[in-house]
Amino acid sequence: MISRKLPKVWYGGDYNPEQWDDPAVWEEDIRMFKKAGIDIVTLNVFSWALNQPNEDIYRFTNLDAHINRLYEQGIYTCLATSTAAHPAWMAKKYPDVRRVDFYGRKRTFGGRHNSCPNSPTYREYSEKMADKLGERYKEHPAVLIWHVSNEYGGYCYCENCTNGFQRWLQKKYGSLEKLNQTWNTRFWGHTFYEWDEIVVPNALSEEGEGNVSAFQGISLDYRIFQSESLLECYKLEHNALKKHTPDIPVTTNLMGTYPELDYFKWGKEMDVISWDSYPGIDTPVSLTAMTHDLMRGLKDGQPFMLMEQTPSQQNWQPYNALKRPGVMRLWSYQAMAHGADTIMFFQLRRSIGACEKFHGAVIEHVGHEHTRVFRETADLGKELQQLSDVFIDSRTEAKVAIVYDWENRWAIELSSGPSGSLDYVKEVHKYYAALYELNIPVDIVSTEDDLSKYDLVIAPVLYMVKKDYHQKLESFVEKGGTFITTFFSGIVDEHDLVTLGGYPGKLRKLLGIWVEEIDALDPSHFNQIVMKEKWGRLEGQFDCNLLFDIIHTEGADIIAEYGSEFYQGLPVVTANNYGNGKAIYVGSSGEQAFINGLIENLCQEKEITSLLVTPSGVEVTERSKEGRAVLFVLNHNDIETSFEVKEEFVDLLTGSEISGTVQLREQGVMLLEKINK
Amino acid sequence: MISRKLPKVWYGGDYNPEQWDDPAVWEEDIRMFKKAGIDIVTLNVFSWALNQPNEDIYRFTNLDAHINRLYEQGIYTCLATSTAAHPAWMAKKYPDVRRVDFYGRKRTFGGRHNSCPNSPTYREYSEKMADKLGERYKEHPAVLIWHVSNEYGGYCYCENCTNGFQRWLQKKYGSLEKLNQTWNTRFWGHTFYEWDEIVVPNALSEEGEGNVSAFQGISLDYRIFQSESLLECYKLEHNALKKHTPDIPVTTNLMGTYPELDYFKWGKEMDVISWDSYPGIDTPVSLTAMTHDLMRGLKDGQPFMLMEQTPSQQNWQPYNALKRPGVMRLWSYQAMAHGADTIMFFQLRRSIGACEKFHGAVIEHVGHEHTRVFRETADLGKELQQLSDVFIDSRTEAKVAIVYDWENRWAIELSSGPSGSLDYVKEVHKYYAALYELNIPVDIVSTEDDLSKYDLVIAPVLYMVKKDYHQKLESFVEKGGTFITTFFSGIVDEHDLVTLGGYPGKLRKLLGIWVEEIDALDPSHFNQIVMKEKWGRLEGQFDCNLLFDIIHTEGADIIAEYGSEFYQGLPVVTANNYGNGKAIYVGSSGEQAFINGLIENLCQEKEITSLLVTPSGVEVTERSKEGRAVLFVLNHNDIETSFEVKEEFVDLLTGSEISGTVQLREQGVMLLEKINK
Amino acid sequence: MISRKLPKVWYGGDYNPEQWDDPAVWEEDIRMFKKAGIDIVTLNVFSWALNQPNEDIYRFTNLDAHINRLYEQGIYTCLATSTAAHPAWMAKKYPDVRRVDFYGRKRTFGGRHNSCPNSPTYREYSEKMADKLGERYKEHPAVLIWHVSNEYGGYCYCENCTNGFQRWLQKKYGSLEKLNQTWNTRFWGHTFYEWDEIVVPNALSEEGEGNVSAFQGISLDYRIFQSESLLECYKLEHNALKKHTPDIPVTTNLMGTYPELDYFKWGKEMDVISWDSYPGIDTPVSLTAMTHDLMRGLKDGQPFMLMEQTPSQQNWQPYNALKRPGVMRLWSYQAMAHGADTIMFFQLRRSIGACEKFHGAVIEHVGHEHTRVFRETADLGKELQQLSDVFIDSRTEAKVAIVYDWENRWAIELSSGPSGSLDYVKEVHKYYAALYELNIPVDIVSTEDDLSKYDLVIAPVLYMVKKDYHQKLESFVEKGGTFITTFFSGIVDEHDLVTLGGYPGKLRKLLGIWVEEIDALDPSHFNQIVMKEKWGRLEGQFDCNLLFDIIHTEGADIIAEYGSEFYQGLPVVTANNYGNGKAIYVGSSGEQAFINGLIENLCQEKEITSLLVTPSGVEVTERSKEGRAVLFVLNHNDIETSFEVKEEFVDLLTGSEISGTVQLREQGVMLLEKINK
Repeated sequence: MISRKLPKVWYGGDYNPEQWDDPAVWEEDIRMFKKAGIDIVTLNVFSWALNQPNEDIYRFTNLDAHINRLYEQGIYTCLATSTAAHPAWMAKKYPDVRRVDFYGRKRTFGGRHNSCPNSPTYREYSEKMADKLGERYKEHPAVLIWHVSNEYGGYCYCENCTNGFQRWLQKKYGSLEKLNQTWNTRFWGHTFYEWDEIVVPNALSEEGEGNVSAFQGISLDYRIFQSESLLECYKLEHNALKKHTPDIPVTTNLMGTYPELDYFKWGKEMDVISWDSYPGIDTPVSLTAMTHDLMRGLKDGQPFMLMEQTPSQQNWQPYNALKRPGVMRLWSYQAMAHGADTIMFFQLRRSIGACEKFHGAVIEHVGHEHTRVFRETADLGKELQQLSDVFIDSRTEAKVAIVYDWENRWAIELSSGPSGSLDYVKEVHKYYAALYELNIPVDIVSTEDDLSKYDLVIAPVLYMVKKDYHQKLESFVEKGGTFITTFFSGIVDEHDLVTLGGYPGKLRKLLGIWVEEIDALDPSHFNQIVMKEKWGRLEGQFDCNLLFDIIHTEGADIIAEYGSEFYQGLPVVTANNYGNGKAIYVGSSGEQAFINGLIENLCQEKEITSLLVTPSGVEVTERSKEGRAVLFVLNHNDIETSFEVKEEFVDLLTGSEISGTVQLREQGVMLLEKINK
Repeated sequence: MISRKLPKVWYGGDYNPEQWDDPAVWEEDIRMFKKAGIDIVTLNVFSWALNQPNEDIYRFTNLDAHINRLYEQGIYTCLATSTAAHPAWMAKKYPDVRRVDFYGRKRTFGGRHNSCPNSPTYREYSEKMADKLGERYKEHPAVLIWHVSNEYGGYCYCENCTNGFQRWLQKKYGSLEKLNQTWNTRFWGHTFYEWDEIVVPNALSEEGEGNVSAFQGISLDYRIFQSESLLECYKLEHNALKKHTPDIPVTTNLMGTYPELDYFKWGKEMDVISWDSYPGIDTPVSLTAMTHDLMRGLKDGQPFMLMEQTPSQQNWQPYNALKRPGVMRLWSYQAMAHGADTIMFFQLRRSIGACEKFHGAVIEHVGHEHTRVFRETADLGKELQQLSDVFIDSRTEAKVAIVYDWENRWAIELSSGPSGSLDYVKEVHKYYAALYELNIPVDIVSTEDDLSKYDLVIAPVLYMVKKDYHQKLESFVEKGGTFITTFFSGIVDEHDLVTLGGYPGKLRKLLGIWVEEIDALDPSHFNQIVMKEKWGRLEGQFDCNLLFDIIHTEGADIIAEYGSEFYQGLPVVTANNYGNGKAIYVGSSGEQAFINGLIENLCQEKEITSLLVTPSGVEVTERSKEGRAVLFVLNHNDIETSFEVKEEFVDLLTGSEISGTVQLREQGVMLLEKINK
Repeated sequence: MISRKLPKVWYGGDYNPEQWDDPAVWEEDIRMFKKAGIDIVTLNVFSWALNQPNEDIYRFTNLDAHINRLYEQGIYTCLATSTAAHPAWMAKKYPDVRRVDFYGRKRTFGGRHNSCPNSPTYREYSEKMADKLGERYKEHPAVLIWHVSNEYGGYCYCENCTNGFQRWLQKKYGSLEKLNQTWNTRFWGHTFYEWDEIVVPNALSEEGEGNVSAFQGISLDYRIFQSESLLECYKLEHNALKKHTPDIPVTTNLMGTYPELDYFKWGKEMDVISWDSYPGIDTPVSLTAMTHDLMRGLKDGQPFMLMEQTPSQQNWQPYNALKRPGVMRLWSYQAMAHGADTIMFFQLRRSIGACEKFHGAVIEHVGHEHTRVFRETADLGKELQQLSDVFIDSRTEAKVAIVYDWENRWAIELSSGPSGSLDYVKEVHKYYAALYELNIPVDIVSTEDDLSKYDLVIAPVLYMVKKDYHQKLESFVEKGGTFITTFFSGIVDEHDLVTLGGYPGKLRKLLGIWVEEIDALDPSHFNQIVMKEKWGRLEGQFDCNLLFDIIHTEGADIIAEYGSEFYQGLPVVTANNYGNGKAIYVGSSGEQAFINGLIENLCQEKEITSLLVTPSGVEVTERSKEGRAVLFVLNHNDIETSFEVKEEFVDLLTGSEISGTVQLREQGVMLLEKINK
């Protein structure tokens, strides 16, 4: 649900300049906003201290003025609740709002995202602020959407969190007997006899830096608990706002594959997903694409908001390269190509001081519009205004799903052994990249999502198989689906307890294999995936590394074998016919060329075809609604590229008709709609 | 003293499965233990919390059952006292049991090896637990040996430790005047006027990470104090057990070259040495051999127990490679070859949860015996059962001793300058490796051990010469022995105070040299050891690096000179005739080929001969008793290898007669006994 | 003002041996001092605890004896106040003397430079100690100079510092409104309503390791505050001493480019600058030269003292190389060449224990004079005694100034973006090195110094332009001067607030350019400086990296353009005629060859000539007074080198006449005075 007062892609960004009180500045800024086609401005993100100078006083006259000035010029507001950084007076008077860090140190005052999520003071005053804002602006026609807090994240380890964790555990497990069993506390003599013997897992107890833990069960539960604690803070504000404005959507800005929060749970509580996309100069474009798809997947394919991107430069990377000419436009369309109906910037004007003053902005420190960055922003703004609303609210139809799961990720990261170099996101991305290269649409789904609409489901490193998730997978394959999973899957249940009886545990039947041992070597050491026979593009051998499952087939066919080590000749890739479908197991981390070939073959088998065949670097996605479909064609290459189309299209950006051989300039974009003759 | 109820190598391991209460599991496990030839099982290592739910209640019914079940099936128990991890209730009720870490942070609850060694509560309750166990099981015929706590280690910096340290210092020094002088507190104005002005050296006072200290004397004393504090904890339990069972040996599992404890002092208090051997995939086999010899040296050559090794995989390395086929057997025999009469595993069954669930076990998560790991374990078990007891309780006869000293190591590590890359264990290993390559037996000895039975004594980097240790060395050489030491030797006394009057201090007379200066360069920078004349295999020049002593001979002969730098042409290796023997000084860290040649020459001079001449990678040791000797021949190569024997032997593993050219397969082992015709 | 009782270069060092009370030692040591030509000895540096055993007792009998013994043998004393390490009794009784570290941890007792500068106890007792010493030794003829504390440094974050900081801010800003505005606290919601809401910026509030800060304004102010707090401690002692001995100069030993203290402010309060020079084996000799010039610049060109250098080895480097033969003499003359009238060592005798026992000394652990190090020290001592006082109190005449500014450096280091690899000292050194190579004298000046006597002023990375400093630069250029600055200049004011309206802010008019964007890339990525036309040695193209300003000229001439990236062909180096002078802007970090050529060209234009043309590695400086000038010629090469002189000189070291082709041996030194015929 994105409030649709604007029949176009929303275009705008965050505005928090220090000179805002100066009419000469805001008049000029608004003039430039309009010139840039900006129709929505995020206000009030970090204004808690400004709007509430003490416990009793709330003063919104400034905010009133800001909203009104913009609205008078036709610009809407994305109104933030300002609770992502507590006021200094609150930190002084109510120490419970201040976090205790991973090392057990009570924070003083500073930074942002600094409030303990289990602080009674924080909860009371943040909810109250949301309530005050809801009440004050519920009738204001400028307010299109609520923006709660900002980039939630960071864990706390204070006494309130400790008590909260104990209560949460009591509710989850019911009895200490159950908890002791689930955490396997007999190991290293940790049996608990009273709830208050349980302490939070940090550097003073069970954990070390880099996700090292002595008790995975405790650490996993603490991640779930903290993610939920922060979500409860969100919900308090969300509900306070909905009370006043049931029809105005509420969101908070997420951060892609941010490790600390289980965004699938968050998505359920948000009216619309919004997120902040900050790729570095070396981030693969396919990883950005995957992250957009993940964000779209949080709410079942609903369009999302690109709440933040930089017009050009970031400030917190080691080296903050400018976005090259055309790249900001290209990446904006990439967001839309994957489901965004909103393009917003952090920030509209560079700040004059403090740590983000070198972060890019639509209006740079020079203060006028005669800059490359402004011109590119304004060009895009105009383009978006002229663009028909053909893809607004439209959906992506995918026959392929990739399973992504935060609890699985946490458990993998917490695992002590077998390999310290296993990176969940990287392994997921390998499979995504293969589909990306083929221009085949993908949904990223949680383990709770329905799989019946897909032909191919991929769950890389499905280490944790929760409850009866294997049955969902079995049922999917039984009905004809193709399933792929990899090494280090099926090992544990939802509590990180090993499924005894042979790896890959609950997946063993579906995959028709038994993994006897898992070898782990320095990633610079490679084995080989040797194809038993040529299969499509796959022939000969491919490198693999990281982990090496020693596999015995139990019904599965052998697709490839290891090329060296003492398990040379044993299976490394297998396929098991199961019901009407089949289940593939990839027992080591294959090089990208292997994954690409495998995915291509399996898609061919399932008749899942490319939206368009293009050279490498030219990305194609599709969004459709009500029978109309738009192809987004994006040239990420630094050179002009050409490709063939077999039908006739119109490019919605230029109105040109397109057929046969198409030229697309470097960083170029086309929005193609088929011409029905 | 190993209790010898079993007339064979003890074979077994640690057993602590969570499913132990399930008859279906333990019946099956015991069946498999017997199938694997396992006759001893370690129980109760981390069961303190389980057995003592609060201050007053002790309940051992479970433990009774476990011991009995095993014993009924003919399996003995190595009974642990369980005190290596205090219960959560104790951590809550008695904060003094919790350590304060190096950064001054009070720990909460978690991990293991977590008790303050100077905590009155910990001392009281750990001793009491040992007492309770001693009393309960004193008559039980299953109990072969007591296993106190587990892998003692880790320092504490709490108030009790501070007070304990002050008292310990008072006892050691008698007066503050003596202490001030010994620590040289005038330097940086640290003169103490009251004992309670002294604080523990940690990150809040004198030390930084990586053994950095502003006052070496304080830091050295604290290491001695903490090692002794932990040893006192051991002794409390040891004595409590001996009170009940004077005839059952008591041990605790040590950790090889573990830096924090002075194991030579520990060895004196233990009835038998046991240790946990965890080489990584890249650990040189000669380093494992050296560590076994060190452990054997802790109790004057008595056989020791291999208390822990993994059947295959570890879990806490960055990359946990499987032990390749045959390697577990090979390394088990390597332990026996160096003095082990016991081969035990951590662990017998993989745990279902927490941080060691990916550590290898005899019974893997699959739960049955049809695995490579089980087969290899069972094959070895059967072999050990069939092996005659010919080498049980036997000794190693060595004419060469290497001096190893923890206080010396501490002082070297704490030294500020000249080089941050000096690694004591690495330098010791260089000399060990030369003897290993020659199949010449070595004893690792402390500075307290008698040297009279040796022909060659090597003390690499003997930085600290305690009290009159130089006199022992002088006497050894005077009587005809050959002594070798290296750069950075003879510098300080037992308090890390420099011996004034010229390096190498107390060793100057013996070595016949004066070291005027010590150059230190980045280890990537090499000088050359240029031989004055050909000597055996040594001719031409060899690389050296790290430290470069600028030497003037005072009676010594020059064996080699530097090849470059401003000290080119000055001596780098010297030999001094002293009495009937000679003393060699190696003034820089030579490459291995030089050390090998040097050792070979000196052994030839002393007529110390190889047990057998074999190709590289084939290790040979000998154990003997009552006139019978067994040669252990171990092929660490990945290919079959051959060598010549000049006499006739029988291979005790196969019964075959061996003579002439012998073939030994990759990872192969022979136990050869000479045939007396 | 250096007290001139000695009509020669002072020669001596720090003496703090533990055996000092032993007549056999001190008699022997003094004999050797005299043999080495030593005439000044630093005493009492770390003797606080020794001289003051408790609050009430001061005992200086030992110190009396030491001073007297030396003085009787003709050796003067540099008398330290001993306050760089508080006594243990004080740390115990008055916890406020102990610092709280960056992580918020209260220190216990240990190390040195360990007192909180805002501790009332420390201030009281350190001032009192200075007073006691001043009173006691005011008439003593041995005391040449006072040495306050030692190597001031290190920040504290305790409650007294917090309160002190709040008061300091109140004084600086007058109102919270002004402070909020200056720190831009609206950003991230930090508005302060009470002074005591402000906390110190550390790891518990705004900062992270490596100069990371969320609020640059707070962090910058804290650095200024702590530098001033420590300076106040110095001043308390300084004034206490001056009260007794107005004519004896007072100093403290500085540390070159030490980052934490604003030495230009310190210089104002000191009677004479002294500093400790510890180059590593790889430190460029030009960087040492630059640091000497910086120290000379702190007090407007007055001669300074080399208070500490090592005779040979250091102890705290990772690898502590010996100073090669001749190097100590060469570097001593280098110090004199740049303005030192004093050559002193740390230390005169090696300590027997604690962390500096492996630091070099004139008298090594061997205890006698028959060492290379002693010989070199004694040779230099004799040379200095025989040298006429021709250059004592003389000055360096420079036409070139380089601007160096600590607040600018702090602001650059604190900056979040654009590049994490920007190193202020390194960029300054690039320009210094170009002048060094040309044997052109340079003054290092602060932003407060007068520029009118210079022809060329260089201000690399003048990120912060304080108040109206741009006007001083404009006036300098207007009158005919040449000014050079670089990328990332003119960005902020003295509060680190951006100067709006276009980079380089206040320098835009002077430079005649507008910088639209600043690209930042990994330093391994290079662009090119492409010369528009040949200019002296500059032709073709040169590499540049780090930051890349995208420049538009506004009146300036283009000297060079970028060779690649999307700003290829845009200006990278510009020159703007302004009044009678010109202002050069270098928009990226050029390779050294480019900087060398640029400086050479600009010097030629201004007729600034080399003192002497020599091969690379042969350094030439000049000191002059009363019409007499001495050229210092230093051969830093490891080989003999020759060069031409066009006039006739006498070498003051040898008395030889020099003309035509001159040979100078490796590490050789000449002091040339022109022969006026």
